[in-house]
Amino acid sequence: MKILITGGAGFIGQRLAKRLLERNELNGKPVTELVLLDVARPNDERLLADERVRAETGDISDPAVLRRHIDTQTEAIFHLAAIVSGQAEADFDLGMKINLDASRALLEACRAAGHKPRVVFTSSVAVYGGALPDVVQDDTALNPQSSYGTQKAIAELLLSDYARRGFVDGRVLRLPTISVRPGKPNAAASSFASGIIREPLNGERSTCPVDGDTRLWLLSPKSAVEALIAGCEIEREKLGLRPVINLPGLSVSVNEMVAALAEVAGEDVVQRIDWQRDERIERIVCSWPGAWNTARAEELGLSGDKNFADVIRAYIAENHAENHTDERS
Amino acid sequence: MKILITGGAGFIGQRLAKRLLERNELNGKPVTELVLLDVARPNDERLLADERVRAETGDISDPAVLRRHIDTQTEAIFHLAAIVSGQAEADFDLGMKINLDASRALLEACRAAGHKPRVVFTSSVAVYGGALPDVVQDDTALNPQSSYGTQKAIAELLLSDYARRGFVDGRVLRLPTISVRPGKPNAAASSFASGIIREPLNGERSTCPVDGDTRLWLLSPKSAVEALIAGCEIEREKLGLRPVINLPGLSVSVNEMVAALAEVAGEDVVQRIDWQRDERIERIVCSWPGAWNTARAEELGLSGDKNFADVIRAYIAENHAENHTDERS
Repeated sequence: MKILITGGAGFIGQRLAKRLLERNELNGKPVTELVLLDVARPNDERLLADERVRAETGDISDPAVLRRHIDTQTEAIFHLAAIVSGQAEADFDLGMKINLDASRALLEACRAAGHKPRVVFTSSVAVYGGALPDVVQDDTALNPQSSYGTQKAIAELLLSDYARRGFVDGRVLRLPTISVRPGKPNAAASSFASGIIREPLNGERSTCPVDGDTRLWLLSPKSAVEALIAGCEIEREKLGLRPVINLPGLSVSVNEMVAALAEVAGEDVVQRIDWQRDERIERIVCSWPGAWNTARAEELGLSGDKNFADVIRAYIAENHAENHTDERS
Repeated sequence: MKILITGGAGFIGQRLAKRLLERNELNGKPVTELVLLDVARPNDERLLADERVRAETGDISDPAVLRRHIDTQTEAIFHLAAIVSGQAEADFDLGMKINLDASRALLEACRAAGHKPRVVFTSSVAVYGGALPDVVQDDTALNPQSSYGTQKAIAELLLSDYARRGFVDGRVLRLPTISVRPGKPNAAASSFASGIIREPLNGERSTCPVDGDTRLWLLSPKSAVEALIAGCEIEREKLGLRPVINLPGLSVSVNEMVAALAEVAGEDVVQRIDWQRDERIERIVCSWPGAWNTARAEELGLSGDKNFADVIRAYIAENHAENHTDERS
């Protein structure tokens, strides 16, 4: 089967690509072609060397680019390309263009192709905000307090309606904050959720911009990739009237993350964290839920991580075993 | 103050215009100019004769049209123009163009003008759907089961983010189904909610396409107009992080509506209703909530109707006192 990954040069995109190639199967069919569409080429040469992989560069907000890469052979699409939260807040028009217009153009390209491909959108904790229960439920209203969250919530609604009308076989996976990401800090307001682990482990200082009591809802890169694949493989009928799924995560406070880092790497490493609150980041991140109900995801066969110390250990193991890769998405 | 009403030639648009001219005040300022923008001219000659009124025709999905009619003098905007539920389901692209693109273009025109006008969007029961509690709460998730509901939900999100960023002073009023509308049936899936009262009173037969137990959430035209004005006058600070308000309504079953009609006009009139279920309409209308919690709206000073028999009596009184007007919106 032919698969398209938008944002295919990003950290999660490349990791998903590698996993799909490795298992060489999706929805019961062999992976014959894997198109990685992004503004830049992937940096992983081993990935590019696989004969099933085709790296394509292009602006996904240009409908012609999407039409070119979505044809009746494209059986599954993972739409990962996005402008992250901090950047979408700083550049409103860019966020609207990529997070909203490109998502809509992708759905339109699928509709035009007419073969009802399976489409996976990723969404985020950022669709929630305002007064929230301690544990967000499946029927808790969205009230995003960032432009990123707004754009993701709109993309969810669009996909849901395109799916309801039979234009696509779509589903939305709401991801917790991904941690620990390798590479460098990015413009996501949640960038610190990886930085306060990664930089100290690399012997560098890192600033934590939120209070230690701030509760985050986290998922490791490995579990995120497994959830993307499992989410893609859920039969449409099982989704009922709600194609949006809140993925399992770990609810941990920043203090608990730091304690796990101390447990795994020692107190010295933890001393490399500087605590300096940043109101701009705090306003966004603290509007997100610290946990949500995962019963439906688990019924659908999706799972997350066991504990954050193990997530750190896996990060260390992976980043000793392979070169660091840049992250962009 | 200068006020713009999109959909200003529609039934609610004209009625709102008349009420604004009559009270000659909005947000504490006199009404000096009232622009009624629509694809057609209003049909009420008395309204057009008022020197404060300017009727403008144009396609609101054309950003240039909106920019022409929204300038720094435009202090309040009621955005009522919409493609109704049945039509948006039948013509997906038209619904997207008017209910989504035009709403966004309107917000962009306000942003470009730069003076943060007060903007009132109307939304609908149709933003809800799927498994719902008997009484929808302010924090119940949106899960629209129609393209109209999806487009309205997206417009809500857009307005909320434009308001949060300070581009507009916005608020969304979620309207119950308006009943009793005068005039002719329209393409709204809920058209029957007026038709089964209006046509029998006019000596005509009318078909009810849903089961008598179907519960509707209703608001009279008069109360809707009062709520639009009161909603526009709510101080921004009182809206907190959620500029969307569920307006008070009456929760009545279709059987209760018919019983009220019998009470007001007699059993003979009720015999003019034909009961013939229509799956297309039922699927949309039965996905809507039959009631929602009105505590917040009441705290904000908004109110609805007392009982449906009085709504029918008011309809009869109004439509004896004045000519029938066509309804379009």
